[in-house]
Amino acid sequence: MKAVRFSSFGQPLKVVEVVEEPDAPLKPGEARIEVLASPINPSDVLTLSGQYGQLPKLPAIPGNEGVGRVVEVKDSSAVREGDLVFLPLGSGTWRTHLNTPAEGLVPLPPGTDVQQASMMFINPPTADIMLRQYVTLQPGDWVLQNAANSAVGRYVISLAKLAGYKTVNVVRREELAAELTALGADAVVVDSDTLPERVREVTGGAKVRLALDAVAGDATMRLGDSLATGGVVVNYGGMSGKAPKLSTAATIFKDITLRGFWLVLWMKRTPREEQRALFARLAGLIADGTLKAPVEATFPLENIQDALARAMEGGRGGKVLLTPNGKV
Amino acid sequence: MKAVRFSSFGQPLKVVEVVEEPDAPLKPGEARIEVLASPINPSDVLTLSGQYGQLPKLPAIPGNEGVGRVVEVKDSSAVREGDLVFLPLGSGTWRTHLNTPAEGLVPLPPGTDVQQASMMFINPPTADIMLRQYVTLQPGDWVLQNAANSAVGRYVISLAKLAGYKTVNVVRREELAAELTALGADAVVVDSDTLPERVREVTGGAKVRLALDAVAGDATMRLGDSLATGGVVVNYGGMSGKAPKLSTAATIFKDITLRGFWLVLWMKRTPREEQRALFARLAGLIADGTLKAPVEATFPLENIQDALARAMEGGRGGKVLLTPNGKV
Repeated sequence: MKAVRFSSFGQPLKVVEVVEEPDAPLKPGEARIEVLASPINPSDVLTLSGQYGQLPKLPAIPGNEGVGRVVEVKDSSAVREGDLVFLPLGSGTWRTHLNTPAEGLVPLPPGTDVQQASMMFINPPTADIMLRQYVTLQPGDWVLQNAANSAVGRYVISLAKLAGYKTVNVVRREELAAELTALGADAVVVDSDTLPERVREVTGGAKVRLALDAVAGDATMRLGDSLATGGVVVNYGGMSGKAPKLSTAATIFKDITLRGFWLVLWMKRTPREEQRALFARLAGLIADGTLKAPVEATFPLENIQDALARAMEGGRGGKVLLTPNGKV
Repeated sequence: MKAVRFSSFGQPLKVVEVVEEPDAPLKPGEARIEVLASPINPSDVLTLSGQYGQLPKLPAIPGNEGVGRVVEVKDSSAVREGDLVFLPLGSGTWRTHLNTPAEGLVPLPPGTDVQQASMMFINPPTADIMLRQYVTLQPGDWVLQNAANSAVGRYVISLAKLAGYKTVNVVRREELAAELTALGADAVVVDSDTLPERVREVTGGAKVRLALDAVAGDATMRLGDSLATGGVVVNYGGMSGKAPKLSTAATIFKDITLRGFWLVLWMKRTPREEQRALFARLAGLIADGTLKAPVEATFPLENIQDALARAMEGGRGGKVLLTPNGKV
């Protein structure tokens, strides 16, 4: 078994190494899974650098989600050899193989898009919950978001469209407009100090009550200043490296609220049954192609440094995936 | 009748002038009131400079609250000559006299502290509502606030004490500690980058869930970083001139919320009966001396520039009042 491992927090490219370990013997009730695809999410990079909200004991294997194939089962009929399955969330997925209890694994339908399914547990629920948890939207209502070209941003566009909400999508590069419009974006605007006026123009002066922010800093303030009285800005990322802020004109005179979203907290607070229902719904939307995120590149485990470097670059065209067994 | 008047928004000292106007004749059902005391609140200064959330048509007479004495009544038995009354909220109170419908005026008990009563309608409800509206506190719970030596800050200390909440009071000057402690503050700490550690020390590691912020900028972030998971920072002023911010560690990983409070919005949204009940309760607490704010100085109308200059200074010892008839 090969795995990525890190023994200290720091510059992600410097702290990771690829190690080879003997396969652990399979215990009764366990399945051995070969990992087919696992994404590098922003939370993985923050974990490696020690800036994430919960950090593992070291040494640890990074990686939180993915899809694999069952290669062996011991004393269980929950899954069979050859089944495609989701890897358990948070199981350290940047490795070639892992052993896990077979009970609880759910076989994916044959023909599943392994790459798309490997990105299901973190970004799609983030998009979905943020659209539902803070403001009760009605069909026809507008949602504003920045980093609209990110994986979460694209899921937001698709999920909003499905629910009948309209989206104003803030990007840094004008040339993304056509692609996001094709995906279902109702408006795409380039970020600037005149964002509130631009939002007013493209929405025809609609009262926008929800904004999703992955950039932080002044970008958060521009979203807040674009909302109607009582609106909510949900911060879920800090791509600018700055602290999210609002103007006092927004907080005090317009009752704008700044909230944060973290999937880990949501999972701690939400009944299992509700979580399962959400994941089942999202799995359906990924299976039928409604939800889709572009993949920038795939890398084998051995090239983890190159993979991380690419995942940390701006202006990417999609997600970076690890394909530890080179099979997808 | 003399009054302060302004005809344009700008530097407060420059836009105000004192004008003399003929007394308007008293209509049936009206009372003429001589103004005894009216405070200069931060919202008045922001109105003069054009930065407030709602601005009057110009020319206008500034001033939003105060206490006066009835000097004449026409065809009404609601009040009598000699009665002390609250001036109607938002009536342009920086003048010697005003005519207003007698119906709705409530005589204050003889012996009322006119200066203290003149400050009742804006700062005390701000303190009271912020303590109740955002987080449901229990006796023994801690509240954190900055600008603790302001009028609102002092009302917060007294109202929290009354409800059994404990307060951590953030100030810029160490020498305020004794005075605020005498008022009922449980802890007084000087603001610094180590505020979260200081708060942990003085509260014995208690989970602080509410912070009140009149400073904004980095000061807001220090409050946010001092709160327990799920806590709320309520921004109600911008003394630093900066935008209130939170760290992404607070928004995302600790579910800290940034809200704003504006009394004007509260009044628009709150049933009249509830508002009256609040003001009656606060009037009682002012009458019995539970709520008290120091007065830095009183000025006649003619010295409005000096009064404004003093009201806009940092490090004041209390509120600046106008006493247009020189009687309190």
